[in-house]
Amino acid sequence: MNRQELTEQIFLKGSYLCVGLDTDPQKLPPHLQSDPDAVYNFNRAIIDATKDHCVAYKINTAFYEAMGAAGWEIMQRTAEYIPATHFKIADAKRGDIGNTSSQYARAFFETMNFDAITVAPYMGEDSIRPFLEYENKWTILLGLTSNAGAKDFELQNISDGRENKKLYETVMEKSASWGTTENLMFVIGATRADQFQQVRTISPNHFFLVPGIGAQGGSLSDISSAALIEDCGILVNASRAVIYASSGADFAEMAGSMVSGYQKEMKIFLSLKKPSS
Amino acid sequence: MNRQELTEQIFLKGSYLCVGLDTDPQKLPPHLQSDPDAVYNFNRAIIDATKDHCVAYKINTAFYEAMGAAGWEIMQRTAEYIPATHFKIADAKRGDIGNTSSQYARAFFETMNFDAITVAPYMGEDSIRPFLEYENKWTILLGLTSNAGAKDFELQNISDGRENKKLYETVMEKSASWGTTENLMFVIGATRADQFQQVRTISPNHFFLVPGIGAQGGSLSDISSAALIEDCGILVNASRAVIYASSGADFAEMAGSMVSGYQKEMKIFLSLKKPSS
Repeated sequence: MNRQELTEQIFLKGSYLCVGLDTDPQKLPPHLQSDPDAVYNFNRAIIDATKDHCVAYKINTAFYEAMGAAGWEIMQRTAEYIPATHFKIADAKRGDIGNTSSQYARAFFETMNFDAITVAPYMGEDSIRPFLEYENKWTILLGLTSNAGAKDFELQNISDGRENKKLYETVMEKSASWGTTENLMFVIGATRADQFQQVRTISPNHFFLVPGIGAQGGSLSDISSAALIEDCGILVNASRAVIYASSGADFAEMAGSMVSGYQKEMKIFLSLKKPSS
Repeated sequence: MNRQELTEQIFLKGSYLCVGLDTDPQKLPPHLQSDPDAVYNFNRAIIDATKDHCVAYKINTAFYEAMGAAGWEIMQRTAEYIPATHFKIADAKRGDIGNTSSQYARAFFETMNFDAITVAPYMGEDSIRPFLEYENKWTILLGLTSNAGAKDFELQNISDGRENKKLYETVMEKSASWGTTENLMFVIGATRADQFQQVRTISPNHFFLVPGIGAQGGSLSDISSAALIEDCGILVNASRAVIYASSGADFAEMAGSMVSGYQKEMKIFLSLKKPSS
């Protein structure tokens, strides 16, 4: 899915919401516990209930890997079930030497048909480039994350002898030349809305994937007013707040209500930015 | 496997060699191409032919993920086939917010019984800690890697206002307090033997996982003279140089010869360091 197609979906639905499928088998509603295909059926019900109000789904690979090969099979079937109208993100945080990153790119862009994968920047350009080589696929590079550990390295000062920049700023500036605004996005943590202005100065035109409304604590209003650009430019993710909105038999219905609520807010924020066409 | 058990195996075998199972289905010998279980049977033959001369195996998850769920199943069976006497590393380069890293730790330490996993440091302490919480399991954190991209971030100067350090030095120093020399190792790239002295100054007692002899170009002699400590303190990995030593029916035999050659060298280097007990 290219940027124009993604943007069209966003304005069509009035939503830049991404639903995170971080499905933990231990947190399924009681009535599903005896279902031999419980995780897949849970995901399917969540997708059915939310697809009209969101534009993307993000599958967190860790939760599926914890189930072993069977979990990978559920991940594959879930990815296949996501409608072609929706942007499919593998939240995998991969990254290795080029030879190995090529295999990860193959896994998520060919063996599975994801539109995007999250990637960690530590190993530098040649660890990222194999992902960027795919046409109409996206690399979502970690910029500034929402967790406490961001202070350990991401927020440290990098000195080039002339000026100091934060590591995450260096990552965003340097990697911008490896890809384009058509194939590279950044993960920008939502609990730091005060820093969104600064991040938009560094990357005025890149899409940001913003985790962290709901369980991780960010405010949709703060994020949107700081980071929205003319063609939207952000995907805001909610995982636990949506998929565990209810722990009962009405989990899908409640998930639907949650995303409908987010979508209503988003539609308003978007209307303030919509190109006057 | 704890440090003492690992060290005992090293001195018993006179080897600190790790064999990397980066098995690419497209590079299998022609006579295996028609085998429906070719990758697993290739791995098994490699393990049988090399186990007397190495102390560890490293499974590169990317190559298995490229095969989808079927690849994960081959990875699991390969991990089970590795003898209990050998240190089992998942070369996975994972790392995410704590809640997610806990799931990765579960995947590799519980669902599969790996002794160690490689982890990327970018997201800081809370992304690493879930791995360190497992008893007798090891977290192998990326320090300085052997690829060209190391210059992009790892080798950049971090400034704390008083002094400049490279990012990888900051990673090693800071993370040393999160774990111990009994549960934390570092990946240190072998094409930079000139920097091993400096790295040993930062971490005099940690084990290093050293990728890059063979295909990535490091010298075993340089690495060993700079990084060996009294209880060894290094695992040196060879992947492609071993598993693709021959592209014919004699692939396992040739892999065995390669590792036997490495082991003979290693035995000499070790004898110079062996504690006088």
